Amino acid sequence: MSGELDLIERLRALPLHPGARNLDDDAAVLQIGGETLVLTHDMLIEGVHTAPGQDAADVAWKLVATNLSDLAAKGARPVGVLIGFTRGGDDDRFVAGLEEALSHFAVPLLGGDTVAGGPPRSHGLTAIGRATHVPVPARSGARPGDAVWVTGILGAALAGYEAFLAGDRPRADAYLRPRPLVEEGIALAPVATAMMDVSDGLLLDAWRMARASGASFALDSAAAPVALPEGRRDEALRWGDDYQLLFTLPAGIAPPLRATRIGAVTRREGDAALILDGESIESPDGLGYNH
Amino acid sequence: MSGELDLIERLRALPLHPGARNLDDDAAVLQIGGETLVLTHDMLIEGVHTAPGQDAADVAWKLVATNLSDLAAKGARPVGVLIGFTRGGDDDRFVAGLEEALSHFAVPLLGGDTVAGGPPRSHGLTAIGRATHVPVPARSGARPGDAVWVTGILGAALAGYEAFLAGDRPRADAYLRPRPLVEEGIALAPVATAMMDVSDGLLLDAWRMARASGASFALDSAAAPVALPEGRRDEALRWGDDYQLLFTLPAGIAPPLRATRIGAVTRREGDAALILDGESIESPDGLGYNH
Repeated sequence: MSGELDLIERLRALPLHPGARNLDDDAAVLQIGGETLVLTHDMLIEGVHTAPGQDAADVAWKLVATNLSDLAAKGARPVGVLIGFTRGGDDDRFVAGLEEALSHFAVPLLGGDTVAGGPPRSHGLTAIGRATHVPVPARSGARPGDAVWVTGILGAALAGYEAFLAGDRPRADAYLRPRPLVEEGIALAPVATAMMDVSDGLLLDAWRMARASGASFALDSAAAPVALPEGRRDEALRWGDDYQLLFTLPAGIAPPLRATRIGAVTRREGDAALILDGESIESPDGLGYNH
Repeated sequence: MSGELDLIERLRALPLHPGARNLDDDAAVLQIGGETLVLTHDMLIEGVHTAPGQDAADVAWKLVATNLSDLAAKGARPVGVLIGFTRGGDDDRFVAGLEEALSHFAVPLLGGDTVAGGPPRSHGLTAIGRATHVPVPARSGARPGDAVWVTGILGAALAGYEAFLAGDRPRADAYLRPRPLVEEGIALAPVATAMMDVSDGLLLDAWRMARASGASFALDSAAAPVALPEGRRDEALRWGDDYQLLFTLPAGIAPPLRATRIGAVTRREGDAALILDGESIESPDGLGYNH
């Protein structure tokens, strides 16, 4: 992954807008008139971010959902999306899934581009949202003494993925059709000191949040609710695609929704951004899904 | 191209934002906080929109320039861009070209995504601009009696493409490194009744503008300035990539910059959106570059 990190460092050295706070991580924040906009752009490449045989309608849904999840982590209410994709054999299903997702989340299409090209098919989506609380939560705001919380149940997407591989489509929804936690993000934005969505695995994303905050996260892996048998708890914490919200609150503040306290923010000592069940972890390798 | 048109019709049937005026054609217009934003998203696919052996730095430049050209056609001043691209072997050149373009046009990077995937490599860019004049010019505003104008010289990109194929890189800039006419678009926005950038060939884009306006354009092909020998005038008017501005003005109004009057808007009779040198043209086939 060092090539990826080098590239991101180089992109960060470009002329950046002041709102481009964490390229390739956080969504951008833009002041326009009296409003604060949040903008994010994510891509899905066939065969890299999709499983063989995945219905193009599910791909379209996931593309919408993952971008809205980035807005959710900022407490932003979606305003609209721009879509770009390569045309191919299953455009009908792709557009059907796009329609389902946009209708379900009540987000209008603003525009976009369709082009010839591929395989592999390539899909990109830009989502624009309106911040509901300023300052907009960032992943960099966790402070020593804060508690670390997560919504929902982890590993549900992994269980869904395994159901998908087994041909059990009805049980595969957690993987194929994630739900961005837009209302939850809006409820948390005024109280969270830091927030992000868990897209690449709880441990990796916690490592990233701790690092962005210049702190360490001391996590109790047994505290996190998981969707898998106890013997697979570790997998559930390292697999991505759950799109739950990871956030920090000052000690003694209860979250305004159902969530689980999984640890505490501590002062950073050395390189260990993560202290997992008492063990210092100094590298993100193996903590989750890098893509 | 009927597959493409069907697809666009289907996208237009999705829940559209009121600002999504012409999906896959015009940029979107969004009212936010007392300001009017213009948003556009274009993709470039390796091998489809790029020539074999094209430097990735030139691909990055073109990706930025073509999106800024869409903003220029709306009289919008660029605010920032979000980039998405597949990582590959020549990332260094791609990022170098991105940096050159963003610096040259003084546009900051807001964020984006880089992913594994390809070949072919896929690149998408979302550009956000601030409208300088409201109502924002659209391609649908041409009225019978207006004059039809175009900036610059057509076919320069075709000449540049041929220079590129001949290995004459210094003369290939018009093809490889187009210049979006941002200041020209801003100057024209208050006076133009309709405006668009010429990306797919003058005749095809004029046909589209006439059609969007529910009118016909009667064009004098000899009037348009071309960069090629007279015997190749027809090619110059059908080749894309010039990114000049095509616009209409009420009769008797002179444009505030150097431009050429190439015809007049007339009432539509039948299906002929274009009347070229007196000949009615009822189909866009062969008028330019569909992609």
